[in-house]
Amino acid sequence: MIKKIPHRLYLTEDQMPTQWYNLRADMKEKPEAMLNPATGKPVQPEDLYPVFCEKLAHQELDDTTRYIDIPDEILEMYKNYRPSPLCRAYNLERALETPAKIYYKFEGNNTSGSHKLNSAIAQAYYAKEQGLKGLTTETGAGQWGTALSEACCYFGIPLTVYMVKASYEQKPFRKSIMETFGAAVIASPSSTTEAGRKILAENPDTTGSLGCAISEAVEKAVTTEGYKYVLGSVLNQVLLHQSIIGMESAKAMEILGEYPDIVIGCAGGGSNLGGLIAPFMRDKLTGKASPRIIAVEPASCPSLTRGKFVYDFCDTGKITPMAKMYTLGCTFTPSPIHAGGLRYHGMAPIISKLYHDGYMEAVAVEQTKVFEAATFFAKYESILPAPESAHAIRTAIDEAIKCKETGEEKTILFGLTGTGFFDMTAYNAFHEGTMNDYIPTDEDLQKGFDNLPKIPGIQE
Amino acid sequence: MIKKIPHRLYLTEDQMPTQWYNLRADMKEKPEAMLNPATGKPVQPEDLYPVFCEKLAHQELDDTTRYIDIPDEILEMYKNYRPSPLCRAYNLERALETPAKIYYKFEGNNTSGSHKLNSAIAQAYYAKEQGLKGLTTETGAGQWGTALSEACCYFGIPLTVYMVKASYEQKPFRKSIMETFGAAVIASPSSTTEAGRKILAENPDTTGSLGCAISEAVEKAVTTEGYKYVLGSVLNQVLLHQSIIGMESAKAMEILGEYPDIVIGCAGGGSNLGGLIAPFMRDKLTGKASPRIIAVEPASCPSLTRGKFVYDFCDTGKITPMAKMYTLGCTFTPSPIHAGGLRYHGMAPIISKLYHDGYMEAVAVEQTKVFEAATFFAKYESILPAPESAHAIRTAIDEAIKCKETGEEKTILFGLTGTGFFDMTAYNAFHEGTMNDYIPTDEDLQKGFDNLPKIPGIQE
Repeated sequence: MIKKIPHRLYLTEDQMPTQWYNLRADMKEKPEAMLNPATGKPVQPEDLYPVFCEKLAHQELDDTTRYIDIPDEILEMYKNYRPSPLCRAYNLERALETPAKIYYKFEGNNTSGSHKLNSAIAQAYYAKEQGLKGLTTETGAGQWGTALSEACCYFGIPLTVYMVKASYEQKPFRKSIMETFGAAVIASPSSTTEAGRKILAENPDTTGSLGCAISEAVEKAVTTEGYKYVLGSVLNQVLLHQSIIGMESAKAMEILGEYPDIVIGCAGGGSNLGGLIAPFMRDKLTGKASPRIIAVEPASCPSLTRGKFVYDFCDTGKITPMAKMYTLGCTFTPSPIHAGGLRYHGMAPIISKLYHDGYMEAVAVEQTKVFEAATFFAKYESILPAPESAHAIRTAIDEAIKCKETGEEKTILFGLTGTGFFDMTAYNAFHEGTMNDYIPTDEDLQKGFDNLPKIPGIQE
Repeated sequence: MIKKIPHRLYLTEDQMPTQWYNLRADMKEKPEAMLNPATGKPVQPEDLYPVFCEKLAHQELDDTTRYIDIPDEILEMYKNYRPSPLCRAYNLERALETPAKIYYKFEGNNTSGSHKLNSAIAQAYYAKEQGLKGLTTETGAGQWGTALSEACCYFGIPLTVYMVKASYEQKPFRKSIMETFGAAVIASPSSTTEAGRKILAENPDTTGSLGCAISEAVEKAVTTEGYKYVLGSVLNQVLLHQSIIGMESAKAMEILGEYPDIVIGCAGGGSNLGGLIAPFMRDKLTGKASPRIIAVEPASCPSLTRGKFVYDFCDTGKITPMAKMYTLGCTFTPSPIHAGGLRYHGMAPIISKLYHDGYMEAVAVEQTKVFEAATFFAKYESILPAPESAHAIRTAIDEAIKCKETGEEKTILFGLTGTGFFDMTAYNAFHEGTMNDYIPTDEDLQKGFDNLPKIPGIQE
């Protein structure tokens, strides 16, 4: 145990975790099985082989193995940027005059700018191991595409990225970074797929959507010999890979002789949240500790706080298996808020189940309050946070202020998932006072609920 | 001593240097005195007070104190992002099949994206300590402006940044980041100064220049009560602050039981280079070791390899003191190459003197070769380097390839000064094959030399 807690603790290579932790193994009630939309039957690994590579299909459905060894080749690339630091926010604490101790795990110190790289490396590695000829994916804001480009470049796997046309045009530098790492970046919708051509024929001027980009990426994968599709969030396998965040955090906290009273993460698809909370939720599931665990979502896309816990498609195009999760309906279109990474209609099935079963809390926060927190944090901690990450900052600050009021010296840990260099349009809007706090009405949400799938015998 | 050398070594807070090292103290022949352009006499601290704050004026002229304690307040902010990692480039070594051991000190893991923050913090702190009401500076590519914004925000000092209009328009996100940190950012030339108004009257459509921005920033500082001017490179004080890079590197190497045979840094104004090499040059000056030390400059702006070692102005506007340095003449206009940070007509006087006296080597490299090295490095080390930093990568790779040819197992250390997120226009040009390797002709250089200042009795 270290007596004087440093501003930043980096584990040594010897201390780095060498296993992922599979949260599902300790859940007494498992997340409900994914369903094959054609048959309404639970999905088997083989059902996923056409889309995912085999090892990942098995990881997707494995809800019993607690710890999974991280292959050496993955650990080797992790060492290009990991361990990430566990930071003590001394300056923020002083500024807030709070008795709380605030820690954050900073995942932005890599070229992709976010935690996405943790799963991208794993997925690219398994693709190489299976001898695949290439991968496809989609990207919205571009962090996932960047991360996967880095990983595929490292392992020598060709990659095609379908990038939502609006982002392709607004964020040309994101595209350039992916190209620097050798990826082929295609604006979606495109004429390279049936799905893209159909949408272009109907609406030649569309700027695309994530749903459409997913459809194109999946189609390209299943119609190209030796290609598979990979996804950066929501999936069980992604949460598994992201557990490296939590495992490092728990190890660092142990070295410091600390344990969090409250663990806070922003929640879009749920990948960073699922990764950060993994070992702390394990302790809660196994009765070893009982930290509060809080998911923070945008008030404009409130899947946990205002969604329904039902079966739904993971994509707008309704081509994926159906998962039971908190959802606003796969046809729900969030307002064009700036925190791009949190604009997902659903929530990872693991997170949904844990929330449903009372193991965690959820709060929804408004955008301007998020940016207030982001700029306050930047001033004292000298890091420009991604808008997504700033949702967690907002709630961490709110909890620290409560500690000031009550005098409680709580230990708060939050996930700082990434940096905001490519989100300056949003920061500009905040500075200029043109940012608004759109909150969907009940009627808006009902439209999404009306389109939820009907599954005979399961969900009528 | 650590037996298995990790991919990244972070010093612990206890191991972090608490003193800057002043290289001049160990130079048997000191850099020549700066001259007051009005009198032709050596500059005294008082001569600098109108422009610089007092502590910094003294640091500028102090060539005898070897070690200077870093104030606690500065150390506290350093801990927001330092120590920076010393990285072993295992993946790059494997890719090159070289017996050389390649290390790099990575200074890009902070919001400013470069090493500039090391001196920005010091300069902002001393301004606060002196009770100043504000600071002014100029910025070209924006790294320095970003760094100083962060530092001034942290210490609560108002900051006005004159940003070259071309960059202001081409890099709106750089401007937004500075504004997020509370800086006032003004496109230069502007109507806020005499210098700016004059230039605008002569040429209303000008996109500005660094020289003009410096003139405006200095004028604003000297004409505003309680304001001073700060500069991010070239100056002795800046090299002093940047010695933290070298001190950390030397300490980390000591822990690893290593010592570099070759130390390589990119060279624009010379601040990162001077900081990185400081302790190794100390060892060379004091006879303890004899590493090769190599400055890498762009072939398009070759101050060391093709410039003259004479007195010249530090700025294009000829308002600063004159320094003896390798220079292409303060009126030399480098081609609009993309590696913005290395487009300076001169070289820090300390570096110039050491190079002149044979303590170090210099090489000039062409831009396309630099970007080849940058993309190769990115593939294996998963970091997108700034074009400036990639000059050092180019030479490190070249030296490692030589080792492959000779079989020598040399230890190479280079400075990776920053990240390239804001330089994607240059990467694009490289990918698209539209990048060119402009090298000035002797006639081009002669124009700059023709405008060197004449100083009666000293330089006719």
